[in-house]
Amino acid sequence: MTADVLKNVRVVLCGTAHPGNIGAAARAMKTMGLARLCLVAPKRFPDPQAEWLATGATDVLESARVCAGLEEALSGSAFTVACTARVREIAAPMVTAREAAARIVEVARAQDAALVFGNESFGLTTEEVNKCQLLATIPANPRYSSLNLAAAVQVFAYELWLAATGGRAPAAPARELATFEEIEGLYRQLERAARESGFFDPRKSAKLMPKLRRLFGRARLEKEEVNILRGLLSALANPKPSRPPQQGGPGSP
Amino acid sequence: MTADVLKNVRVVLCGTAHPGNIGAAARAMKTMGLARLCLVAPKRFPDPQAEWLATGATDVLESARVCAGLEEALSGSAFTVACTARVREIAAPMVTAREAAARIVEVARAQDAALVFGNESFGLTTEEVNKCQLLATIPANPRYSSLNLAAAVQVFAYELWLAATGGRAPAAPARELATFEEIEGLYRQLERAARESGFFDPRKSAKLMPKLRRLFGRARLEKEEVNILRGLLSALANPKPSRPPQQGGPGSP
Repeated sequence: MTADVLKNVRVVLCGTAHPGNIGAAARAMKTMGLARLCLVAPKRFPDPQAEWLATGATDVLESARVCAGLEEALSGSAFTVACTARVREIAAPMVTAREAAARIVEVARAQDAALVFGNESFGLTTEEVNKCQLLATIPANPRYSSLNLAAAVQVFAYELWLAATGGRAPAAPARELATFEEIEGLYRQLERAARESGFFDPRKSAKLMPKLRRLFGRARLEKEEVNILRGLLSALANPKPSRPPQQGGPGSP
Repeated sequence: MTADVLKNVRVVLCGTAHPGNIGAAARAMKTMGLARLCLVAPKRFPDPQAEWLATGATDVLESARVCAGLEEALSGSAFTVACTARVREIAAPMVTAREAAARIVEVARAQDAALVFGNESFGLTTEEVNKCQLLATIPANPRYSSLNLAAAVQVFAYELWLAATGGRAPAAPARELATFEEIEGLYRQLERAARESGFFDPRKSAKLMPKLRRLFGRARLEKEEVNILRGLLSALANPKPSRPPQQGGPGSP
């Protein structure tokens, strides 16, 4: 699935008091592929503070819709989720941000969906919540669960991005892994070096090689790294005459 | 597992330029049960802007450790994760925030772990990254992946909280679900009402009742809701004489 589905998701901020939070929310949205922002009765908008905190996401601010009420903002939405920090008196089902994101993406494949956030101090009113079909919350520290508005938008947007794209980490530069034979060659050389250096006696410490295998196995060695390690072992076993031989090493007389 | 494990996790911010971001990061940490903040060479700290954005998390700011260099901040850490937005030249393994959180929590059961963030504009230097054992990134919009520093701390902290606690949504107020017999009683009454009202002819529309069962089944009815629905159906079938009878309803002559 691609992030295209996120075009059908709008973020609705109700009665936002601080324009900085609108800007920061726009930035949070854009980092997660969301572009449709609706502002219901914002206290100050547009505002330079919003633009400053949006940084590279001023396009989201510029295309934001300003609505007088929540109903206008929800027009055309087929599934609406209210984001809330507190358990409400109405026994509506409450899901986590992650589950809400999965359900929104499911709907957004074909129809519009909306994610609604309340005012910084009071959250959503009961009347606003009643216009939504699902309550969603961000699991948080029960002793202090007050996320900043834009931070809450960031977490929900992040979960939407993961739900829409699968959210893999970007691929690291391709690295060529060492083959089985190359790694076995390293182990043989390691064992020989350990024995010839007097570091280990295979009759006494049978576990050394399994331990080394475990370590290098975990590391998933690259071809180049095997070459480096083998070169280093060779050099330690046969130091060049120009350097003083290693003290007590196999090269010493 | 409880959130206690998070006591062993420190958040390290390197060279933070804006004190507001330090305050917002402290707030993000506290919402997710993290309390240990280390600041490596912050540009301005302490600062009223940091306190203002920390809101209820000024305790995290007050107990923050200020260090001259990253090594000092990492002293005692058994596992260190670098948070980065970009793929680095060094082919270090890069995992998602979610995977990094799982690994950190695993270590933090017994030993200290650290999560390291770089400067707002430049991120972490290569030298700083090389002091860490794992690179982690927040999956994001490749066309605009620049999360605000505190927003990135919020997402990582959120994943740590989920990894440490399982992150269930708080329980909604207990609601007493209707029993099987109560719900079947409702269906019988519904069917009778539909038939007696002439709304449906069971020989013609056999699918009505399965459809109604599907609808109410999905809703998982409460005891009280069944009572409300049954009361309403009774009232519709037998309107009180004080009200004019429903037009065309079974009560009309």
